[in-house]
Amino acid sequence: MGQGANVVDLPPMPVVECIPNVSEGRDPAVLDACSEAIRRAGARLLDVKPDAAHHRTVFSFAGEPAPVKAAVLALFETALARIDLRKHSGEHPRLGAVDVVPFVPIEGVTMADCIAMARAVAADVATRHNLPVFLYEEAAAMPTRRNLEDIRRGEFEGLAAKLQQPGWTPDFGPSTPHLTAGASVIGARMALIAYNINLATNRLDVAKKIATAVRQSSGGLRYVKAMGVELADRGIVQVSMNLTNFDKTPIFRVFELVKREAGRYGVTVLESEIVGLVPAAALTTSAAWYLQLDTFKDEQILENRLRQP
Amino acid sequence: MGQGANVVDLPPMPVVECIPNVSEGRDPAVLDACSEAIRRAGARLLDVKPDAAHHRTVFSFAGEPAPVKAAVLALFETALARIDLRKHSGEHPRLGAVDVVPFVPIEGVTMADCIAMARAVAADVATRHNLPVFLYEEAAAMPTRRNLEDIRRGEFEGLAAKLQQPGWTPDFGPSTPHLTAGASVIGARMALIAYNINLATNRLDVAKKIATAVRQSSGGLRYVKAMGVELADRGIVQVSMNLTNFDKTPIFRVFELVKREAGRYGVTVLESEIVGLVPAAALTTSAAWYLQLDTFKDEQILENRLRQP
Repeated sequence: MGQGANVVDLPPMPVVECIPNVSEGRDPAVLDACSEAIRRAGARLLDVKPDAAHHRTVFSFAGEPAPVKAAVLALFETALARIDLRKHSGEHPRLGAVDVVPFVPIEGVTMADCIAMARAVAADVATRHNLPVFLYEEAAAMPTRRNLEDIRRGEFEGLAAKLQQPGWTPDFGPSTPHLTAGASVIGARMALIAYNINLATNRLDVAKKIATAVRQSSGGLRYVKAMGVELADRGIVQVSMNLTNFDKTPIFRVFELVKREAGRYGVTVLESEIVGLVPAAALTTSAAWYLQLDTFKDEQILENRLRQP
Repeated sequence: MGQGANVVDLPPMPVVECIPNVSEGRDPAVLDACSEAIRRAGARLLDVKPDAAHHRTVFSFAGEPAPVKAAVLALFETALARIDLRKHSGEHPRLGAVDVVPFVPIEGVTMADCIAMARAVAADVATRHNLPVFLYEEAAAMPTRRNLEDIRRGEFEGLAAKLQQPGWTPDFGPSTPHLTAGASVIGARMALIAYNINLATNRLDVAKKIATAVRQSSGGLRYVKAMGVELADRGIVQVSMNLTNFDKTPIFRVFELVKREAGRYGVTVLESEIVGLVPAAALTTSAAWYLQLDTFKDEQILENRLRQP
């Protein structure tokens, strides 16, 4: 039975995502200018998430490598012209006007491609704006510089002193801070999924124990960061997570582990929640696991065939 | 934790799929001409599946309504010029050179839109080619004409007599067969998923019993057709199915029911298999069910956001 098809393999259109965090979260005019610069460069602006308390905004955009690169450069132009960190104070730590810029491979683009993009953009903006730039995560020049928190420690105010230390010469640009824009951190990483699992209990200790069990740092799954939190308005608790490599540590594995750990306390999963954007592959991989779809190929997804060139 | 985003709701680009079955499965020149006609009209050709024994080919193409409609009209032009049913003999029953043409809503297109497309195309080709046309499935003018098998009964050879019967006046076109092209059946239906579940047993009676349990006609799930078959080369059996409305009767429900029914016989599911193309929504719906994703929206899928205008 059925109308089986021999689907033709065509190369996918390359898609890279960029998620710059910018140190402005209150002035809509500045944010609109940034959004406009991104769009005009030809990238698809997916999301703009300002946080007034953090005084910080997360931009998400995607597209083929060339327009995405152009959009990042345009964003640097706009942000550096309009943000003065000497007047900046917010709840989120920051090193630069354009604080951090990760490139993420989505489709038809490798991590190596993203690392190359990060390096090219870093070299460009460092020269063009006389800006110190550090590479991080997969693009890091040395293991001690992979972690964003380590690079950012000291923030804008401590930057002049930090740049003089041996071991903190920037990867590109001068060893003195940009007067108003500080320094920037540019790199490449896998797509990150913000994933929460709500438990049918008000026992915060249960959520915290499960978070401890499931996060990498305390012995759990490799690409999971997790914490237990209270959702006081609902009278329940949550295991709040970042999945930092959904290809290696897939959503379904995390779900099943949390569910089983919750069962040890007589607690069931109420629901789970993906916050923000998620690559389709993360979901189809989970569907394929549960449905035991052994021979399934992404080219069988009709919408994927429509998106090919 | 996490970088939650308030995603902006944008209207999706409308996508309709068309899966015409044409009565030619052996002459590559004719099939190439048909493929070329479809492409030149601006539709995205997804698949061409010829069957020499059936002497029949299934074309799958999709796109926005206007190019898809143009592609169907171009296909009729090409097929009617090159196929002569008087010389046609194959294992699959057929009424016309272009035998059946279903329109399927994929995204941003309603069933009503597809019914309207079917009617418009039917009226056009009936007039242009002096061809009798019947509407079927969701586009059927009366309940007795919903089912393709009922309309096609008698095939090309019995068409002249059938068209003279009261109750078999075509919906469009003359009450005499087209000399070489017979009649065509045009309509609208939901996307169909060809879905098989392989069982870890060689007991064909188990597969047949499960098929009986799960198919609508003998008491099972409403939008499922099923049969039990043997995969002799592998020494196992299969429940082979067509899911005719994956929105109302989703894949995961079918899987879970078959799995439970198999358990009654001490049999496990080896794997399941989707044959050919599947709309992404069918898989993400299943993922959302297994992961208990209560508040998930399709706009959160990154690739969907890239495909919007």
